[in-house]
Amino acid sequence: MPTFKNGQETTGYAARSNESAMEPITFERRPLRDNDVAMEVLYCGVCHSDLHQARNDWGGSVYPVVPGHEIVGRVTATGPKASKYKPGDLVAVGCMVDSCMECDQCKAGDEQYCRHEPTLTYNSPDRVDGYNTHGGYSKHLVAREDFVLRLPKGLDPARAAPILCAGITTYSPLRQWGVKKGSRVGVIGLGGLGHMAVKLAAGMGADVTLITRSEAKTKDAAKLGAHHALISTDPKAMAAAANSFDLIIDTVPVEHDLKPYMPLLDINGALVMVGQIGPMADFNSVPLIMGRRQVAGSVIGGIKETQELLDFCAEKNILPDCETIRMDEINEAFARMERGDVHYRFVIDMASLEGPASAKQS
Amino acid sequence: MPTFKNGQETTGYAARSNESAMEPITFERRPLRDNDVAMEVLYCGVCHSDLHQARNDWGGSVYPVVPGHEIVGRVTATGPKASKYKPGDLVAVGCMVDSCMECDQCKAGDEQYCRHEPTLTYNSPDRVDGYNTHGGYSKHLVAREDFVLRLPKGLDPARAAPILCAGITTYSPLRQWGVKKGSRVGVIGLGGLGHMAVKLAAGMGADVTLITRSEAKTKDAAKLGAHHALISTDPKAMAAAANSFDLIIDTVPVEHDLKPYMPLLDINGALVMVGQIGPMADFNSVPLIMGRRQVAGSVIGGIKETQELLDFCAEKNILPDCETIRMDEINEAFARMERGDVHYRFVIDMASLEGPASAKQS
Repeated sequence: MPTFKNGQETTGYAARSNESAMEPITFERRPLRDNDVAMEVLYCGVCHSDLHQARNDWGGSVYPVVPGHEIVGRVTATGPKASKYKPGDLVAVGCMVDSCMECDQCKAGDEQYCRHEPTLTYNSPDRVDGYNTHGGYSKHLVAREDFVLRLPKGLDPARAAPILCAGITTYSPLRQWGVKKGSRVGVIGLGGLGHMAVKLAAGMGADVTLITRSEAKTKDAAKLGAHHALISTDPKAMAAAANSFDLIIDTVPVEHDLKPYMPLLDINGALVMVGQIGPMADFNSVPLIMGRRQVAGSVIGGIKETQELLDFCAEKNILPDCETIRMDEINEAFARMERGDVHYRFVIDMASLEGPASAKQS
Repeated sequence: MPTFKNGQETTGYAARSNESAMEPITFERRPLRDNDVAMEVLYCGVCHSDLHQARNDWGGSVYPVVPGHEIVGRVTATGPKASKYKPGDLVAVGCMVDSCMECDQCKAGDEQYCRHEPTLTYNSPDRVDGYNTHGGYSKHLVAREDFVLRLPKGLDPARAAPILCAGITTYSPLRQWGVKKGSRVGVIGLGGLGHMAVKLAAGMGADVTLITRSEAKTKDAAKLGAHHALISTDPKAMAAAANSFDLIIDTVPVEHDLKPYMPLLDINGALVMVGQIGPMADFNSVPLIMGRRQVAGSVIGGIKETQELLDFCAEKNILPDCETIRMDEINEAFARMERGDVHYRFVIDMASLEGPASAKQS
C-alpha cells in the first residue's frame, strides 16, 4: 500500500489475494490535489465485478483490492481549485475517477471510451501518482471533481448507489439507441442490471418486456414496471414474439447463445449487450442482413450522461431495489450474489464500518 | 410456363433444372395491367445470385429460372393508369418488382423489408397472378411502374445495369450509417459489390480503404478510387490500422471469420455485412461492448433510395466497371464468375439475343 506525504488514513475492506476473503484494512487516501473532492462514503453498492476483481477472474488485479464503484458520499473537503461542491453536499462516484479529458471521446462526454483509458475507481493506476486506485468499500474517498456527481435532492442516498453502475450501464444504451415513449424494449435477465433496465425503460415510457428463462421472475418483473414477460424456454411464446422489439438489452453476464433472441428483433432492431458474454456460439448473419438488424455492445456511460440519469431518477422517483448490509457481511453477500440470491442489489451502509483510529481521536 | 390471355411472347435464357446449363427459352410476358410498364431490355447485369438461383443453391427455385435483376430497358408501352413513363424512356429495374405498398416498411420507402415480402424480379410468386416471375435475361419485361426507375440522362445505359443490385446493396448502408465527407470507410472484398462500395464511398467524399487478402488487388483499388489498401493477412498492417474505421462494408459472400476485422473499427464504429456469410465462427462480444461497436446487416435498398443512387451516379459520373458479353456467353460468364475472373461485373448486351419470331414478323 502506498503512503502519501500528508495522506489521510482511512479504513476499508479488501481482498489481499485472489483466494482470501474480504477483510478489514487500514490505508491512506492521497492529500487533496487542486481539483479534488474528499468525501465520507455513506453507501456503496456491491457489483458482480467487485467479486470478479477481488478474485482476479479477469486477470490484472493488483492486491490489496478495495472494490466498490457505486458510491454515495458526503463532501468533507475540496481542493483549492475545486469549485463544484462544498462540504456537506451529497455526491456520488461511479466506475471512473479520471480520464485524459483531451481526446475526442472525453470531449464528446464519452469518458468511458477515453482513448487513453479511463482511470477506474478501483484496481486501476492513478494518472498522477501511478498508485492503484481503491474503491468505495471504505470510509473515505478522494476523487477529481470532474468525476464526482451531484446527488439530486429527493433521491434517497441509501438506495441511490446502484444507479452509478447498474443504472448507467443500462440507461446509456436506452438513450443511445433512442428509446422513447412507445418504444418496444426487451430486457434479457433480471439481476442488478436487468431490474434497472426494466425500471428505466418503463420510466422513459417504453413498452417493456422481461425476457427470462424463469417463470418465477415474471411476477417480480411486473412489480418493477415491466408490461409483459416472455419465457425464453417457451417456443410458442418466442415464436409469437417474433419481430416485436425495437431494442433488446441483454444483461446476462455469462456466455450464452444469442441465436434464440435474434428473431425477436423487429426490422432495424438492435440487440445491445451490456454484460461480458465473451464468445458468441454459432452466431449467424442472416437475421441481421434480412432486416437491417444489429448486434452491439455498450459499457457504462459518460459523466454527463450519468448526471442526467441521476436527475432523471430523482424526477421520476426511480430507485434500485436494494438490500442494505453491514460491511462485515460482505463475504456472505458475495456468496449469495454467486447463487443469484439478491433482489436486486446489495448496498453497504458504511456507517457499519468503523473509521480509522485517527478519525476517532479527532 | 404460364400462358396469358393476350400475353406477349418473348425470348430469354433460362435454367430448366438445377443441373442444366443456361439455354434459350421462349415464354410469355403478361398483358399490361393498369399500372404496368412494358420495356425492351437493353442490358442486364450478371449477379452471383443469378448463378445461385439457377442452381437452387438456396433452395426454393422454381424452374425454369430466368435470372437477371440488374436491368436497363427502353419503355415500349404503358398501362392506362401508368403515368410516370412514356414509350422511348430509358428506365431500370432492380431486385424487386412489387411489394404490399401498405405496411410501415413500404410506407417508409423500405420495400426490401416489406412485412409481406417484396416480389422479387425473378423466381418469386407474382402478387396478382401467382406465377413465378422471370428476370432480365430476356428481350422484354413487364413491371409495376412503382418499381420502375428512371435512368437519368448522362448515365451510360451500357454500364448502368449493375447499379441496380451491386450498387444499391452497398449504397444503402453507406447512406443509412451516415457516411459523409471525411468518414473513414473500409470495404472488405473487391468483387461486384466491393468495387461499387469503393466508388460510391469515394464519391461521397469518404476516406476509403480496400481491405483484402490479395496484394494483387491493391492497384485496382487505387484505380477505382480507394485511398488506401490494407492487406488483411499482414498482422503488422492490421495492428497499425486498429480503431481506424467508422464503417466497414463487408461484401464477402461466403462464410468467413469476422474476428480479425473487429479491432479495425473505431469506437462507435459499425461493420455491416451485405453478403450472406451465414454462420459466424467464434464471434466475441468484447470488442462490441468495450467501444459501443456494432455488427449489422443490410439487404439491397428501397425504391426511392435506388432512384437517389441512380441520380447520384449520374451527377458524380460513377459507373460500374463492366465486361459486356453476349447472351450466349452466359454459361462461360457463370464459370468465370465462379473463378473470380471478372472485373467487376458482366453485363449482357440484349441486342445479342434474338427476339421472338412473332416480333420479327411484325
